[in-house]
Amino acid sequence: MTTRAAEPPHPTRLRLLEAALTVIRTKGYAAARVEDVCAEAGLTKGSFFHHFRSKEELAIAAAAHWSEMTGRLFAGAPYHGHEDPLDRVLGYVDFRRSLLEGALPEFTCLVGTMVQEVYATDPAIDRACADSIEGHAATLEADIDAARAAYGVHGAWTTRGLALHTQAVLQGAFILAKAEGGPAIAAESVDHLHRYISLLFGRDPARARPPSPATEKESR
Amino acid sequence: MTTRAAEPPHPTRLRLLEAALTVIRTKGYAAARVEDVCAEAGLTKGSFFHHFRSKEELAIAAAAHWSEMTGRLFAGAPYHGHEDPLDRVLGYVDFRRSLLEGALPEFTCLVGTMVQEVYATDPAIDRACADSIEGHAATLEADIDAARAAYGVHGAWTTRGLALHTQAVLQGAFILAKAEGGPAIAAESVDHLHRYISLLFGRDPARARPPSPATEKESR
Repeated sequence: MTTRAAEPPHPTRLRLLEAALTVIRTKGYAAARVEDVCAEAGLTKGSFFHHFRSKEELAIAAAAHWSEMTGRLFAGAPYHGHEDPLDRVLGYVDFRRSLLEGALPEFTCLVGTMVQEVYATDPAIDRACADSIEGHAATLEADIDAARAAYGVHGAWTTRGLALHTQAVLQGAFILAKAEGGPAIAAESVDHLHRYISLLFGRDPARARPPSPATEKESR
Repeated sequence: MTTRAAEPPHPTRLRLLEAALTVIRTKGYAAARVEDVCAEAGLTKGSFFHHFRSKEELAIAAAAHWSEMTGRLFAGAPYHGHEDPLDRVLGYVDFRRSLLEGALPEFTCLVGTMVQEVYATDPAIDRACADSIEGHAATLEADIDAARAAYGVHGAWTTRGLALHTQAVLQGAFILAKAEGGPAIAAESVDHLHRYISLLFGRDPARARPPSPATEKESR
């Protein structure tokens, strides 16, 4: 049921997946009807059921599509080009902060929204959402490990736990943004995360950011 | 439509409110049916519609009930008895960590769940959830201000922003707990929050916790 990165999805399937992202991020999974997704995509229910057997199958495919789409976005982001691993970790946080703009459904998280609703009632969607969050967090672990080695920072915490904590802050920041109706409060929480990681590695949080590395220097 | 703290709700209304907390925290607001709430409460739909005109009215009253219930819990918690204001702030975080046990619907947040779903579609519930989160965060501000004064900590952040950040971490920790199926990962994020606040105020995060103040010493 998942879309493999190697095979681009059929254009109609892709339109339905993109529409699912918009509709679910706007009104939630339970309230999203197949009709809403079709209307957003400008397609018929016949087209929908040609590509997906159910709303649940769409949601699982949407989580996989989300992981691929955001995976490409983060893989191509400039923070990977910093030589200092702590600059890479903090550059990731800065990059997340730079994404906090526009309308709420444009910058909030598909899988954080879905897992909140279905964790107890739909194990397959729950698993797809957990895989997406955990898989993204895992992309930070090599840089956190390298920063711990470079700065000699150990302490009573795990690399995986810190990687997941960055996701907790972001998911919670999205909830505050929804409560307050805009991204400003979310940006403040991401700034606290940046300050925390700086302090944890013994760096002055007020130190100027290093210049963004040139895109051609990206190492991955 | 809101329940005032001075007037305890009618026992039947209270049973419906408590049932709403369980049902919505288990399956989300959109998927929760009036029938589910009645079944959980062991009451009829006639009883329900005697007390609430709609599911929306129940949700708004449930958010107010949640604020009162959690407000009493936090007002009576031992952390208020610490003399050092930083101990009070960190004691709040420790108290939140101590609540992370049992089944997911028992320790996760009603209003964080509802606002995630309805922020774009139901302004009245959105407002009730925002009031609950912001009102709770505001209870931390006096202690954060006192700690800033006592420790001479200023920096490029606001007291309200840090108070709301504690809520962002908790809300995000609940999402991770739902993704991972248990509270362990949420507790790790709350530990990161504790470590952050310690570092922010220049205290060694490995310092032993002060003994919990005796309940009779509670100042509020």
